[in-house]
Amino acid sequence: MTIRIGILGYGNLGRGVECALRQNPDMELVAVFSRRGNIDTLTHALSLPLDALEDYKDKIDVMILCGGSATDLPVQTPEYASMFNVVDSFDTHARIPAHFAAVDAAAKASGKCAVISAGWDPGMFSLNRIYSMALLPEGETYTFWGRGVSQGHSDAIRRIDGVVDARQYTVPVPEAVAQVRSGAMPTLSTRDKHTRECFVVAEEGADLARIEQEIKTMPNYFADYDTTVHFISAEELKRDHAALPHGGSVIRTGVTGLNKEHRHVVEYQIKLDSNPEFTAGALVASARAVYRLANEGKSGCMTMLDIPPAYLCAMSGEELRAALL
Amino acid sequence: MTIRIGILGYGNLGRGVECALRQNPDMELVAVFSRRGNIDTLTHALSLPLDALEDYKDKIDVMILCGGSATDLPVQTPEYASMFNVVDSFDTHARIPAHFAAVDAAAKASGKCAVISAGWDPGMFSLNRIYSMALLPEGETYTFWGRGVSQGHSDAIRRIDGVVDARQYTVPVPEAVAQVRSGAMPTLSTRDKHTRECFVVAEEGADLARIEQEIKTMPNYFADYDTTVHFISAEELKRDHAALPHGGSVIRTGVTGLNKEHRHVVEYQIKLDSNPEFTAGALVASARAVYRLANEGKSGCMTMLDIPPAYLCAMSGEELRAALL
Repeated sequence: MTIRIGILGYGNLGRGVECALRQNPDMELVAVFSRRGNIDTLTHALSLPLDALEDYKDKIDVMILCGGSATDLPVQTPEYASMFNVVDSFDTHARIPAHFAAVDAAAKASGKCAVISAGWDPGMFSLNRIYSMALLPEGETYTFWGRGVSQGHSDAIRRIDGVVDARQYTVPVPEAVAQVRSGAMPTLSTRDKHTRECFVVAEEGADLARIEQEIKTMPNYFADYDTTVHFISAEELKRDHAALPHGGSVIRTGVTGLNKEHRHVVEYQIKLDSNPEFTAGALVASARAVYRLANEGKSGCMTMLDIPPAYLCAMSGEELRAALL
Repeated sequence: MTIRIGILGYGNLGRGVECALRQNPDMELVAVFSRRGNIDTLTHALSLPLDALEDYKDKIDVMILCGGSATDLPVQTPEYASMFNVVDSFDTHARIPAHFAAVDAAAKASGKCAVISAGWDPGMFSLNRIYSMALLPEGETYTFWGRGVSQGHSDAIRRIDGVVDARQYTVPVPEAVAQVRSGAMPTLSTRDKHTRECFVVAEEGADLARIEQEIKTMPNYFADYDTTVHFISAEELKRDHAALPHGGSVIRTGVTGLNKEHRHVVEYQIKLDSNPEFTAGALVASARAVYRLANEGKSGCMTMLDIPPAYLCAMSGEELRAALL
């Protein structure tokens, strides 16, 4: 019996989940739900409007929520956890505890199972921060992001007057990464760790110096970083910056031994051609785990930190122990 | 209330666990058990002979078994799982299913909880093979070990006639690692991936050419590898090869997208000054998880693949979500 999946929201992430499901033969896509409904999906999957959801309560085992963290998921995940087992990729770190509480209450009330914040950060990076801290309790953990496109920072630039479009790359400082990798445990400021590189399409006649200044001094987003701004044409942006690559590293250095004389460096590193498709992989694997946990009678909210790793895999525990342990 | 830990077996691994426990304030070392008993421990912990074990059934929450995989653990882990919650680092991959079955039967009968094969391979490397396969089901996984000392290969050399002592380093082939890291998904033979470097102390007057030939042609251990043999003095071995460093990488390349047009490379890499002390860190974290799982009423055998990651950490789920997710 295959796991019946629904997708809610059909942007880059929803399309990534749709494609990922074809690589997981133990799952099937029942339908894509979106505000519009009746859209052309990449794989010709059934497309339905949101008001059809109610009819699918017993026809979908896990609903994968592919909306954004700013406004969609804070509403949708608790709402749909009252009808379905759900998975989301909520990634506003500071608001995770509140989101967790809201989803947990809804899922406990309905007896459904939810996993929030699946993806790579939060997600795989969080797991690696936690594993390496558990094994090496004395030490320092460093997270580097990039080189990759930050959607949030690109959006922030687009909101500036005179900007037509923009793409922002987060770039780790190579010297900082090398220093951390050496096991040195340096103290690094925000500016030491990452630079930001912006490709901006401006309106004709716009004051480029003013735009550049507004970007570089923008609090939270750019003011604490060394930022480079390149003005390019709309054609160049489309030609050279259409992809959504990303990547990064979680590195922990820890000390052990009677006199802490031994040093260990543990690194988890990813290089992704497509950020949303890798995140989709985490959502789909988490959906499998949610299905199994729900079948065991579990309810309430969880994150990837609460999922026994074997539950993410299609193979049985026995197969995993024989082949991959 | 602290988690009361016992250590059984007092070689490098047992000493590593003893030191690691001092870095985990939620745990306390009750006693070290060994065949001899009454030994000087690094931290002046209580040392007892094996026949004292029975008296400690209710005074120890988790017994960490630090014997070897060849002869100790296949007997000890099932035996002591009838008295204690236990953790071991059983690392003979091919015999894991049989060991699991034996420990599972014993632990289920006693109502105790056991985790076998905690460490880095099996252990953290297995986890990374499984996470990356779950997220990227289409692709190739590569494991590289080293540069590091292989105890098993060192022992194999020591069994050769005329050899006094030996140290064997497993060394990944840099070109192979670079090729895999690039995302190329090459087909690599055993010989392509690793070389073996041996430092051998021979008896005075021994036939060095014969020893070298016996090493290089030894089936399973060396015949399939490019092996280098250096004859050195006992003093040089002691001076230059006393440490037990190790390391390695698990690298998976996977493809995603409608036409598999996107490529992702995920790597987990470790560089360890002390192999037994890092393994000890995995044993101690797993002991914490075993304690919690046992308190939830779980019994039987598990591996790190079955442990919810948060259970390995001293912090609560709430703290982890707020600080590290």
